[in-house]
Amino acid sequence: MSLLWKEIRDSPMLWLLLAVPVVFVAASVAPEAHTVLFILSVLAVIPLAGLLSHATESVAAKTGDAAGGLLNATLGNLTELVIALTALRAGQYTLVKSSVAGAIVTNTLFMLGASFLLGGLKHHTQEFNRANARLQAGLLFLATVGLLVPSAVASRDSGSATDVLHKLSLGLAILLIVGYALGLLFTLKTHREFFASAEHAETEESPWPLGLALSTLAGVTILVALVSEVFVESVQQAAEVFGMTPAFVGFIVVALVGGAAEMASAFSGARKNRLDLSVGIALGSASQIALFVAPVLVVLSYVIGPTPMDLQFPPGVVVMVFLATMTAMFVTNSGRSAWIVGILVLMVYMIFAMTLYVLPDRGHEADPERVGARLGSVPW
Amino acid sequence: MSLLWKEIRDSPMLWLLLAVPVVFVAASVAPEAHTVLFILSVLAVIPLAGLLSHATESVAAKTGDAAGGLLNATLGNLTELVIALTALRAGQYTLVKSSVAGAIVTNTLFMLGASFLLGGLKHHTQEFNRANARLQAGLLFLATVGLLVPSAVASRDSGSATDVLHKLSLGLAILLIVGYALGLLFTLKTHREFFASAEHAETEESPWPLGLALSTLAGVTILVALVSEVFVESVQQAAEVFGMTPAFVGFIVVALVGGAAEMASAFSGARKNRLDLSVGIALGSASQIALFVAPVLVVLSYVIGPTPMDLQFPPGVVVMVFLATMTAMFVTNSGRSAWIVGILVLMVYMIFAMTLYVLPDRGHEADPERVGARLGSVPW
Amino acid sequence: MSLLWKEIRDSPMLWLLLAVPVVFVAASVAPEAHTVLFILSVLAVIPLAGLLSHATESVAAKTGDAAGGLLNATLGNLTELVIALTALRAGQYTLVKSSVAGAIVTNTLFMLGASFLLGGLKHHTQEFNRANARLQAGLLFLATVGLLVPSAVASRDSGSATDVLHKLSLGLAILLIVGYALGLLFTLKTHREFFASAEHAETEESPWPLGLALSTLAGVTILVALVSEVFVESVQQAAEVFGMTPAFVGFIVVALVGGAAEMASAFSGARKNRLDLSVGIALGSASQIALFVAPVLVVLSYVIGPTPMDLQFPPGVVVMVFLATMTAMFVTNSGRSAWIVGILVLMVYMIFAMTLYVLPDRGHEADPERVGARLGSVPW
Repeated sequence: MSLLWKEIRDSPMLWLLLAVPVVFVAASVAPEAHTVLFILSVLAVIPLAGLLSHATESVAAKTGDAAGGLLNATLGNLTELVIALTALRAGQYTLVKSSVAGAIVTNTLFMLGASFLLGGLKHHTQEFNRANARLQAGLLFLATVGLLVPSAVASRDSGSATDVLHKLSLGLAILLIVGYALGLLFTLKTHREFFASAEHAETEESPWPLGLALSTLAGVTILVALVSEVFVESVQQAAEVFGMTPAFVGFIVVALVGGAAEMASAFSGARKNRLDLSVGIALGSASQIALFVAPVLVVLSYVIGPTPMDLQFPPGVVVMVFLATMTAMFVTNSGRSAWIVGILVLMVYMIFAMTLYVLPDRGHEADPERVGARLGSVPW
Repeated sequence: MSLLWKEIRDSPMLWLLLAVPVVFVAASVAPEAHTVLFILSVLAVIPLAGLLSHATESVAAKTGDAAGGLLNATLGNLTELVIALTALRAGQYTLVKSSVAGAIVTNTLFMLGASFLLGGLKHHTQEFNRANARLQAGLLFLATVGLLVPSAVASRDSGSATDVLHKLSLGLAILLIVGYALGLLFTLKTHREFFASAEHAETEESPWPLGLALSTLAGVTILVALVSEVFVESVQQAAEVFGMTPAFVGFIVVALVGGAAEMASAFSGARKNRLDLSVGIALGSASQIALFVAPVLVVLSYVIGPTPMDLQFPPGVVVMVFLATMTAMFVTNSGRSAWIVGILVLMVYMIFAMTLYVLPDRGHEADPERVGARLGSVPW
Repeated sequence: MSLLWKEIRDSPMLWLLLAVPVVFVAASVAPEAHTVLFILSVLAVIPLAGLLSHATESVAAKTGDAAGGLLNATLGNLTELVIALTALRAGQYTLVKSSVAGAIVTNTLFMLGASFLLGGLKHHTQEFNRANARLQAGLLFLATVGLLVPSAVASRDSGSATDVLHKLSLGLAILLIVGYALGLLFTLKTHREFFASAEHAETEESPWPLGLALSTLAGVTILVALVSEVFVESVQQAAEVFGMTPAFVGFIVVALVGGAAEMASAFSGARKNRLDLSVGIALGSASQIALFVAPVLVVLSYVIGPTPMDLQFPPGVVVMVFLATMTAMFVTNSGRSAWIVGILVLMVYMIFAMTLYVLPDRGHEADPERVGARLGSVPW
């Protein structure tokens, strides 16, 4: 317990933990104060994500290389998964999908770009392990193809098409999960020597004892789930107050909040000229969400959602995910970086953010007729 | 003749030649047994494709380097060409187009991916000649642009647009054939030293005497044409029986059947750690179909088809060809491979196959109104 | 003055300067002779562009490295900017946009491809500086994303959407200009050592004295503006006479005319085996138009245009710009070239040119209903 307390004292971000009890009190006292609840829940998720990430790493460090790597890779985006599951149970599929797509794009562009920029401002040029970057970019590309194709075939006749789309989405989800598992097999087992540097660095901070780590993992996951509930309930009204579209909230705000802890590690790695670590976290996290979190959500939607969720995204979102993947493929190709590369990647992200911010609320769930009209305009 | 017989005895695949007489007997006895005829004709095409391929290589080996290379490159996809010509004469343009697009995608993804996987399962990492891979990928990209643009400009007003599309398709076809010819000039003449390893390996099996090779070439081509006729007539009804869409049959089944012989060589090359050979066959074959077979079919449609054929493909097909080309560009970029690369490429193929299998029958020719509706939904 | 005269005598292209007075006389004598005026104005712009380019380089050479590079980079596409401004003031936004997109595509494909081809016909293989090529391709990619996204979100409901589109276009324009400025900072200041070879070569011809250079710059800019006015007024009727669509004229003809001077330098560099120079001019010019000229036009449209101009391009144009950027990324990736690479790039350009030539006149401004119908068919 004193170790957990030391952790909290050392890391200023963890003072935000104070927001956790406040959000629960506020939610029961003033359930209609959506804007306040939204802000509080965002503030509360950030430190919880940090604790979750550290606890996962600690468990991974204890359980040895292969199992640890597996655990780390599987629970690395637990925050995003829990938030998405909460939205899934509430049937808010637009929020689920935009937060999944947003997490992919934010990790690929914002986390990677800011790492390049922060590292580049300190070091003239930086080198990183191409093998890992290329593999992660390749897996990301595979997932993008999986997202792109069902969206491309979605047809106008909504009758039988929905059924077809659900069957296809389930099949693709299983395929992507298999791909993810094989990717882990490759990096953790058969060809681990290519990924040495990235792996080593991840357990850099002193790990917690196993008991503390496991109980933190369990406890914090529950807290994240509870806070997520407040977040999901308040997000739509709060977004309207701030003049943000739901798409912007899911795509940008949720993604930045959910990835805060990983970003801290990626940025600190870049400053220390360990760009391998940063690239590994950014692209690894993006490909994990695309190949594991998103498919798992599709499969779980059959169990816990009101109706099955498909993998169809609005065309604009597909274009963004595709362009983000292309950007990652392009900039990691040379294995070298300087600050301008970071600017370039960040600007692609800013173009997306700007577009989503300005966009009228396509896909607003409260207005099914508009959604219908939008689906009708899907171009294939 | 005894050489031909030895060939047949040594290669178990050639026992399938027994299906050739059977298919002709069956076609005249029971012309309505579409499912049986379909299966028999598929079985019969596979060994014929193998013989055709060996005969072409034997003639090429006799006629010396430049002419031989030219011959090999031109007749390498003779099976696909003959099947497509048969479908063209029957006016089944959807089948023609989907078999062309399918052959490109299947060679680029299935043949390449399975080579990487089979090679990678035996060898930890493999290297291959990047120069050839890059050139073939570049030619493939050129052809993809040629396919993409007319499909992108196809407009809603069907009146004058059809005319424009035909003019454009013919022009592009000629352009692509010129590009193909210049590509041969480059690899066989001006810069042949860059492609040494790939070329050398192609004439690995002991060549036949010229007379046998030439008569086999002639005789087998005729047999393929006759079997193709049975195949084209039976494919639609058989597909319905198996619950497959015509798109799936053209795209996947025909492509796998037509490419069986080349696949055998590519896979055996990969197992022998001669990945140059595999990559050369897979991408070379894909770019040949895209730059030579498809344009030749457009030109010939003016001579033998009921109406001219254009180069417009449904948007979903264009997306698949484009993504297949991008995949090839990406994975051949490093000149190195391991088993996960094969998995990645194969999974992209499986996503396409799954989508086409599940898809309702867009582009079904028996239903012109639906086709009209589809064309109306072309997005540009 | 005698230096200017020497320049004119030495360079046969400059004899075309005789067309300048002729065009003004013709415009006042026969303002209805659109075809003649069109041809004369094209002929007159070519040598003026050459003088402008030489004058800019001379000023740049005098003012020292950083300031000179900045000046060179900013005024390098002055001809294109002046022509576009004239069309902007006349409210001919389709011409403005297609000339901007055409300049990007023409520089990326025609100038780069012809340089590779001309160099490759003389030298077996050529090498060039990948760092610069990759940076320029990256900047071009950034701009393409900026063009692609607003076109992707353009929605059917034209009411509020126009407003949104204008806000978005203005925001993106400012973002791209900032990106351009940072790119200059990188190449001219913080990482100039990577771009040494390309920069050095640009001031190869003997520079003029500063006074002559400055007055030429001022005088010729005015002449270009005056000639552009004749050009813009005559282009539509002349295009109809020649059977060319306005899209073809803006995309191909204007782009070739405006870039004539730079092409001369790029081609001569390629023949001298200084491919760094050619690639730098071609991609540098393309990225300058995309990141600087186009955004500046958007901003200026608020000041001098009849209505604000947005960054929305027809989908076909977006596809072409995107494919041109992909081509540049692909072919510059290896840092090596041979003649077939030039052929490949040129053929992509020819596919575009052929398509635009054959295309019915989408986007014809004289027919607003058709434009409306087209916008309605924007696919997102």
